[in-house]
Amino acid sequence: MTPEEFRHAGHALIDWIADYRSDLEKRPVRAQVGPGEVAASFAAEAPRAPQTAAQLLTELDEKIVPGITQVQHPMHFGWFPSNASLASTLGDIASSGLGTLGISWESCPAATELEQVVCDWMRQLTGLSGNWQGCIQDTASTACLTALLLARERASDFAQNRGGLHGEQRALIVYTTDEAHSSVVKAALLAGFGELNLRRVAMDPHSRSMLAPGLAQQITDDIKAGFKPAAVVASVGSTGVTAFDPVAEIAEIATQHGLWLHVDAAMAGSAMLLPECRHLWQGVEAADSISWNPHKWMGTILDCSLMYVRDVEHLVRVMSTNPSYLRSTVDDEVLQYRDWGIPLGRRFRALKLWYHLSIDGIDAIRSRLRRDLDNARWFAEQVAATPDWQVLAPVSLQTVCIRHQPADLDDEALDRHTLAWVHSINQSGTAFMSPSILNDRWMVRVSIGVEATTRKHVEALWQLIQQQVQQGAE
Amino acid sequence: MTPEEFRHAGHALIDWIADYRSDLEKRPVRAQVGPGEVAASFAAEAPRAPQTAAQLLTELDEKIVPGITQVQHPMHFGWFPSNASLASTLGDIASSGLGTLGISWESCPAATELEQVVCDWMRQLTGLSGNWQGCIQDTASTACLTALLLARERASDFAQNRGGLHGEQRALIVYTTDEAHSSVVKAALLAGFGELNLRRVAMDPHSRSMLAPGLAQQITDDIKAGFKPAAVVASVGSTGVTAFDPVAEIAEIATQHGLWLHVDAAMAGSAMLLPECRHLWQGVEAADSISWNPHKWMGTILDCSLMYVRDVEHLVRVMSTNPSYLRSTVDDEVLQYRDWGIPLGRRFRALKLWYHLSIDGIDAIRSRLRRDLDNARWFAEQVAATPDWQVLAPVSLQTVCIRHQPADLDDEALDRHTLAWVHSINQSGTAFMSPSILNDRWMVRVSIGVEATTRKHVEALWQLIQQQVQQGAE
Repeated sequence: MTPEEFRHAGHALIDWIADYRSDLEKRPVRAQVGPGEVAASFAAEAPRAPQTAAQLLTELDEKIVPGITQVQHPMHFGWFPSNASLASTLGDIASSGLGTLGISWESCPAATELEQVVCDWMRQLTGLSGNWQGCIQDTASTACLTALLLARERASDFAQNRGGLHGEQRALIVYTTDEAHSSVVKAALLAGFGELNLRRVAMDPHSRSMLAPGLAQQITDDIKAGFKPAAVVASVGSTGVTAFDPVAEIAEIATQHGLWLHVDAAMAGSAMLLPECRHLWQGVEAADSISWNPHKWMGTILDCSLMYVRDVEHLVRVMSTNPSYLRSTVDDEVLQYRDWGIPLGRRFRALKLWYHLSIDGIDAIRSRLRRDLDNARWFAEQVAATPDWQVLAPVSLQTVCIRHQPADLDDEALDRHTLAWVHSINQSGTAFMSPSILNDRWMVRVSIGVEATTRKHVEALWQLIQQQVQQGAE
Repeated sequence: MTPEEFRHAGHALIDWIADYRSDLEKRPVRAQVGPGEVAASFAAEAPRAPQTAAQLLTELDEKIVPGITQVQHPMHFGWFPSNASLASTLGDIASSGLGTLGISWESCPAATELEQVVCDWMRQLTGLSGNWQGCIQDTASTACLTALLLARERASDFAQNRGGLHGEQRALIVYTTDEAHSSVVKAALLAGFGELNLRRVAMDPHSRSMLAPGLAQQITDDIKAGFKPAAVVASVGSTGVTAFDPVAEIAEIATQHGLWLHVDAAMAGSAMLLPECRHLWQGVEAADSISWNPHKWMGTILDCSLMYVRDVEHLVRVMSTNPSYLRSTVDDEVLQYRDWGIPLGRRFRALKLWYHLSIDGIDAIRSRLRRDLDNARWFAEQVAATPDWQVLAPVSLQTVCIRHQPADLDDEALDRHTLAWVHSINQSGTAFMSPSILNDRWMVRVSIGVEATTRKHVEALWQLIQQQVQQGAE
């Protein structure tokens, strides 16, 4: 494809995207295809005869779009908001268009340095001190794995340079709670700690926040038993019920015992753009690493997960490689982001954050986040004020956990009832929410915060839910 | 930013990209900025007043472009080709435009299923049997880490479900060579094996291929010494000198001793699109995992690394998570790519591979690869036929390792001479090559295979090199 063919096809694609984003509200929220349907619409072998870009647009319409759950749809309340603001989308397109290679500073100085710049902008915008340096990872899962590798190597005094974990006399222990994201346990297992060395610290039964005294006690017990406490992962805005572990108290205990403290603020990091929310991670300055995802509520298109550390020297010592074929004459003066994570080659992700901040502007982003907080409060009030309905967890941000709980249902019937009404709505395509298990019972997470979601959509959702429950009862 | 504003700005951006790609040849190959220059051109704080997309285009021109090493430039011969074909770029733009969320099949069935389709197309196009199932990872580094985690858990019978590596009586051993990519050692260290448990198997001194008898002997020795051999990583087209480890022989030994065999074909995988090159990984069917990067020579825009495994059940058992908030009613019938790698959220990467294959077509891609093989053979012949010049390693594909070696230079003077002429050319911006160390001496890798590079550019390079060496001598 020549640049002129690209120009022509690119214009058509931009028009197609603009139309697609304009028409989102007319589509069902959840993809309406069954398992295997999309795959079956493609040939079993790669095309031999080239197709035109125009033909692919038709195929996008016919084969791909029906297979997309519309997370940009204003009636999408599932999982967490995964906003892909059009300003950041433009930056992502610029990244594709430039076709850069990010394997070293030399391969694209602009990619390295703009990433330093925007990570520092974001640091300031979330109220973090100048002690932190950041990078962009793909996801919070990868950031958490990286953090636990850093913890493992600090606690073992660089066992990777000796016999690895085999050589360690005392098993290294990782602390978190059952409310932590699934990626935390995954990261701990992949980092090699082993299931038996993971501790699920006790939580407050209502808020599902880690109980700091429980952590302290567990650490003391583990030390007595001959183990070596290594890391604690604190959840700041958990996925289940948006629980907030008490970072300041945890940090004090972590510091006392020399544990690595990783703060997983994947979702709630966006809230830290609002000064009035920062009390929710009070004490964060004493952590060792922080990650959060602008690609969620804030709306910088996936994938864009920020990771900050205080001890860059330690990070680089654990993660670095420096083969001769990647060396340049200025290596002592520049930063190599390949030494900050797992992949060597990196896309120019800083562009989408730069575009997002520059075009939308931080004031508009903050206003939108505040709108969503208001909408969530309103929604929670409606639910709480309605007979047989319950709000099941504190609404600290924009996710509301709810259940319709008529008096005559036993536990299993209640689960069936909950899944019935939420699946009916999800399957209808009118709106989408995530069923989730809380204390062994199904409930429904209503996560408000899609860029296009206004009060009127939240009102429509509450009407829809009540109608569905009413219909189910008839 | 509204869809209509996006439409307007998107058209301008597409024009800008088309112009940029057209004008590439006029720019210096290597970025002409010094350390810190790009960063210094941005404000220390995020902009408060929104900027227009038009303003950002100006900033792209003024601040970003000078900081890019032009790996799409026809005179770029550095590292490995990192082609970003415009067809695949278009697919990447479609991915951005759709703004999908890939955390489960349900969140975007089309992303999961198109990935299955294109990975299977690529499997067929590289001559792999139907025993392999694939996914797209960001890079070969991540694929290698994933492979070594799979190896670790198979060799330890799922130690992650017990005490992790702490609990193992016998240290697990990983085998590779000094010629393997730096990411192999990095992956082994991050996976927790430890430096003392990595074996660098002896190589043929000329081809730098692993000596299979050396591997067999080392394994026997390790077993006698009470260790547990766990994994071997074979390089198929190494980064240094494009060395090929003998996969068939290694596979036989690996099978005999129950080792996991990971084939790292990051670069040379593209060559497997050509039936006449497949002898270079003969025996690959007996491996356990394979990875290679369409984002290199083949030209699907970064990041697009294919990973294939035979035992999907094992893969998923090691990498899976299944929290309640990600479950759907069809989980038993669908594939969850989150269980194939580290990140939970995934971009819709299959689109760029689909666009690339559909618009460019496999025949044109294969022709281009053959052109590059021809050009490399021609270049190597010129070098070999010129007094005082040496081709230092077999030219199995498209990278030629060369040195100008006048008789009167001792080793250190030779290193200074080599670095002097290559740095002069690189700094001039006229062409770019990668200096690299081979057997403790600097040499220069000339990696041919940028999409825009024709014979005339390779001829120009050879003239330029000879002139530079001549000038340096005067």
